[in-house]
Amino acid sequence: MNGSGKVSNSVIKRLPGYYRYLTDLEEKGMVRISSQELGSRMGLTASQIRQDINCFGEFGQQGYGYNVTDLREQIGHILGLDQKYPMVIVGAGNVGQALAKYLGFRDLGYCVEAMFDKYPERVSSMVEDMPLFPVEELGRYLQSHTIKIGIITAPAADAQKISDILVAGGVEGIWNYAPVDLNVPDDVALQNMHLSDSLMIISYHIRHKE
Amino acid sequence: MNGSGKVSNSVIKRLPGYYRYLTDLEEKGMVRISSQELGSRMGLTASQIRQDINCFGEFGQQGYGYNVTDLREQIGHILGLDQKYPMVIVGAGNVGQALAKYLGFRDLGYCVEAMFDKYPERVSSMVEDMPLFPVEELGRYLQSHTIKIGIITAPAADAQKISDILVAGGVEGIWNYAPVDLNVPDDVALQNMHLSDSLMIISYHIRHKE
Repeated sequence: MNGSGKVSNSVIKRLPGYYRYLTDLEEKGMVRISSQELGSRMGLTASQIRQDINCFGEFGQQGYGYNVTDLREQIGHILGLDQKYPMVIVGAGNVGQALAKYLGFRDLGYCVEAMFDKYPERVSSMVEDMPLFPVEELGRYLQSHTIKIGIITAPAADAQKISDILVAGGVEGIWNYAPVDLNVPDDVALQNMHLSDSLMIISYHIRHKE
Repeated sequence: MNGSGKVSNSVIKRLPGYYRYLTDLEEKGMVRISSQELGSRMGLTASQIRQDINCFGEFGQQGYGYNVTDLREQIGHILGLDQKYPMVIVGAGNVGQALAKYLGFRDLGYCVEAMFDKYPERVSSMVEDMPLFPVEELGRYLQSHTIKIGIITAPAADAQKISDILVAGGVEGIWNYAPVDLNVPDDVALQNMHLSDSLMIISYHIRHKE
């Protein structure tokens, strides 16, 4: 399936975009697409598209292009979307609750199993049917539940400690919304969502066009 | 101030991280820091740090390092954080509301002035004192208010149309949470926050380490 052992980060970063586009095309009933067309939708050249997709094996054929459903399925497979990813959210504030309520993840196999908070008694408007525990119980919970991904939506000051508990509890990925860079072992997949950072990049560009 | 006209995207992307670190160091009472030390905290070499910072002019001095407060202020200035950025949020669902409630932005100068929704009558648990209007009024609102940044937290199907209204209304930046890639003019700063994309990158890494 995986044509080569080493795939560059820039290719990996583009894969979810491919998956999104192909899902959209499939929903619109499109059966096949050329690398030119896929490229123009994604702001890439046809040859970049072909190079990217070739990293993962042989798809498409000269003069025909790609079968939308096949390519979408294969990229989904490469992205691991044929598995389930039980998750916990640590930090039941606004961002944590918004993520817990975001239904788009569940369809992709990412399921929030429980939430944790430092002050669970202060949490109002909880997500329906979602278990909420005090953060002290996180370590014990992870011993008795297989959780693949930990989402950190707690304040920056608590984030590293929570990350350590998640890693000790066996999570394989951490999705970090706390505005701090975490230390995790190399075999734990870390993605940072520093919300303010991307606002700052917008204001950088606004400032520098003036 | 700006040492060179052209700064690479990878340097720009690192600036918010510098700003975050320096803010943290300043809060801890640190007065100066060497490029080595700053580099080791940020996972960069000392020479990368010096190169990055030199892009923006002359800071620091041989053997002394950087004055934390000065460098933080200069980077804040470069990021445009000495200005205010009035913003609107279009889409008052869970993510939109979480962003409206996220106080960290306001301290940096990013102020949500109003929210818009397709079905404002369905929106419960509104942010306190936050004006909420039907999305049909967005265009007119932008004529009478100076809004710098539009945040799109609406469904993917509505996102391009909303983006067009925001651009026509004079916003200079768009922060897009809808899982779709938008077409905006080159002089509008666009940052995409495709939440599912980064979860997929986590699952990619989980899948491929097995």
